[in-house]
Amino acid sequence: MTSPFTGLSAFPLTPLPSDHLDEPAFARLVRRLAGSGVDSITALGSTGSYAYLTAEERARVARLAVENADGTPVLVGVGALRTSHVLRHADDAAAAGAAGLLLAPVSYQPLTDHDVLELFRTVTEHSGLPVVVYDNPGTTHFRFSTELYGRIAELPGIASIKIPPLPADAAEARARVEEIRAVIPEHVTLGISGDGSAAAGLTAGCDAWYSVLAGTLPEPALRILRAAQRGRLADGEAEDGAAEDAAAESKRLEPLWKLFAEFGSLRVIAAVAEELGLVPHRCLPLPLQGLTEEQRTRVADTLDILGLDG
Amino acid sequence: MTSPFTGLSAFPLTPLPSDHLDEPAFARLVRRLAGSGVDSITALGSTGSYAYLTAEERARVARLAVENADGTPVLVGVGALRTSHVLRHADDAAAAGAAGLLLAPVSYQPLTDHDVLELFRTVTEHSGLPVVVYDNPGTTHFRFSTELYGRIAELPGIASIKIPPLPADAAEARARVEEIRAVIPEHVTLGISGDGSAAAGLTAGCDAWYSVLAGTLPEPALRILRAAQRGRLADGEAEDGAAEDAAAESKRLEPLWKLFAEFGSLRVIAAVAEELGLVPHRCLPLPLQGLTEEQRTRVADTLDILGLDG
Repeated sequence: MTSPFTGLSAFPLTPLPSDHLDEPAFARLVRRLAGSGVDSITALGSTGSYAYLTAEERARVARLAVENADGTPVLVGVGALRTSHVLRHADDAAAAGAAGLLLAPVSYQPLTDHDVLELFRTVTEHSGLPVVVYDNPGTTHFRFSTELYGRIAELPGIASIKIPPLPADAAEARARVEEIRAVIPEHVTLGISGDGSAAAGLTAGCDAWYSVLAGTLPEPALRILRAAQRGRLADGEAEDGAAEDAAAESKRLEPLWKLFAEFGSLRVIAAVAEELGLVPHRCLPLPLQGLTEEQRTRVADTLDILGLDG
Repeated sequence: MTSPFTGLSAFPLTPLPSDHLDEPAFARLVRRLAGSGVDSITALGSTGSYAYLTAEERARVARLAVENADGTPVLVGVGALRTSHVLRHADDAAAAGAAGLLLAPVSYQPLTDHDVLELFRTVTEHSGLPVVVYDNPGTTHFRFSTELYGRIAELPGIASIKIPPLPADAAEARARVEEIRAVIPEHVTLGISGDGSAAAGLTAGCDAWYSVLAGTLPEPALRILRAAQRGRLADGEAEDGAAEDAAAESKRLEPLWKLFAEFGSLRVIAAVAEELGLVPHRCLPLPLQGLTEEQRTRVADTLDILGLDG
């Protein structure tokens, strides 16, 4: 598990209080993650509000991330509505020293499969950095087919696919992972997203977890990851009960997953980070309103119950 | 019908061949519309690819639109993912001499009603220009409730709501218009979008038609509009058969509406404008691929059949 495209990738917030990038707060978030033992740090993921930032802000965040990561590999989100803007972000990420790019097919006009394939072709031909295909239909409104995964994954330069949550049923989840693996080259890893179903995703065979939670609370995410990894040793020599441990660690965080489902993971994790004093209050870019006082109280109570309040 | 928020508003393309704004081609499109008798020109609508452009490009397009509109009121699309960017676009539109703003709640993270209400409040408090609320769930993925229409429409500065297509049934369409009218102030106009159902929308009581078609082919759109207007004279003195004339004019264009539905109105109208020599080929911003040669042949054949080929 030495590639930045396996294990746990932590997605830090990009704090934007009063509509300005808080550079010291962001640097502190990254240093905290670098010290936690996560396998990689993905700056400017959805959790890092990449879609809301200017090119200048994005270049600055990429530099700060690499400078403060202390050698932990940094992936940088480069998605944008216009291909030429994606290429600029990719160049800036490379100049910053990123280990890879995260690219979602962000849409305003609905995109066709052909549009998306050509987008990934253009970016992989342009940039020397490995690319994570970011499948997040809740924000991009683009739906990948399994066949399109396959066509994109065979482009030189594709390193990983960040897939949406798998079916809840364990056998169905495993079948879905196998179905994707059947159409992609062996070197392309599969990473799960949707923190509440990450334990199940890892147990079902995903190589990586691209995690909102880990960007702010790496320790509970690492506990889930390590249990799941013990359940998936090479050559089938899985440790007995490890998958159950991963499920139990995840189950323990159920109150947090419920808040993620109710208010969206970004608004909840921003409230968590604000509550823990990791970022200034109102750290999301407007028009995204933070949680209300009542909702924040629920977040604080949940952190308290879970023993995550510092 | 002297307000820019009634009658026919024409949405020109913003030609971007090779990823660069073609200023002469855009200026020609606007001059053509100004000479056609449309009631307003909306620059930087969805048809004008606003979401893909930089702030500098948007400011330039707004200036070019006003300079070439020969007194026809120009509305300018100012939507963006981040509120502070919307305010900048609004300032640039005002400096250009726009008569009003078109604002869609563009989303990456899903927006709440509270987010969207505060966005419109912030923009109307900031800008002296009247605002058209742009409800386009196919691109913004935000769904307005009727109640939210009402809360936004009562903000000082809201002039109009651009609504999605109405129900196909005429009585249901009229009922929907009445339902919206019941919650908005009298001075706020309702404008229909979705060109294929515009005749029905105008007949059902909409005051305006925000039109993709008219941005490239104003004459057939004006024929539909004028027939519909004859069917909606003051005090119920409608001209007999006028609503039927509007429906018949629209029905005649059915092959075009079918292409809009099949490939999206933007890609089709771009192919139409390219086919007619109004804009250079490949005028859409990547990653949006234009239609294939085969699809373009269908567009050209349709223009020929409809007598719209110049």
